[in-house]
Amino acid sequence: MDRVPVLKLGDVLLVSIQVDLADKTTVQLEEDLSERIVATGARGVIIDISALDIVDSFVGRMLATIAAISRVLDAETVVVGMRPAVAITLVELGLSLHGIQTALNVERALEVLSRARDDDWIPPLDTEDDTAPAAP
Amino acid sequence: MDRVPVLKLGDVLLVSIQVDLADKTTVQLEEDLSERIVATGARGVIIDISALDIVDSFVGRMLATIAAISRVLDAETVVVGMRPAVAITLVELGLSLHGIQTALNVERALEVLSRARDDDWIPPLDTEDDTAPAAP
Repeated sequence: MDRVPVLKLGDVLLVSIQVDLADKTTVQLEEDLSERIVATGARGVIIDISALDIVDSFVGRMLATIAAISRVLDAETVVVGMRPAVAITLVELGLSLHGIQTALNVERALEVLSRARDDDWIPPLDTEDDTAPAAP
Repeated sequence: MDRVPVLKLGDVLLVSIQVDLADKTTVQLEEDLSERIVATGARGVIIDISALDIVDSFVGRMLATIAAISRVLDAETVVVGMRPAVAITLVELGLSLHGIQTALNVERALEVLSRARDDDWIPPLDTEDDTAPAAP
């Protein structure tokens, strides 16, 4: 069990991190996730860390890397399920998770992602009209 | 990390099993899940086993127990993400996962659960009318 499963929910991918992330597992997750974003055209990634007792600088960097990769592939990342004790420790250690969006739970993250999509909306180009046959 | 997180998606609870399930973890998961079903009023439970290389009789019994507990609490259970090799081994071993519903992935499971709810629909009792004030 050296892989973290990536679950698809509509145009959002959900990852629940439950295992201690070794270097190999982390690289594998980044690869799997980026491949799935491209394959499914996902617009959002939700990472659940509710099973993690500790979020240290290694985990923080992993989350930042995933968020950066997703952003390049046109998907927003939201981290959910942070335990209160983890939030306290992060602030005390001065790790502020720069560039990582958080939400309380999966449902709130889905709302955040759906709002972000609405804001990003760009009107489609009128290319179809050019290729469509002229009306009789 | 001795707990498997239970994620809420609307009226469905999602559990992704990624760790080797020891007796203690399994009992903890059954407790957590039944408490969450009662607390959230969930109507469905989706268990993702895509991270499992092996589904033996122990895991099979655990899935059956969770399905039975959920059923008593008025929630349907669907197991998703079974690997092809796992399916082959299950059939070869004669483990047929009695009483456990399966679906290919989370999205299909959500469809199954939503269909099951529509079939189960019972018209609400007319209790509100009795307590409502009479129209003037």
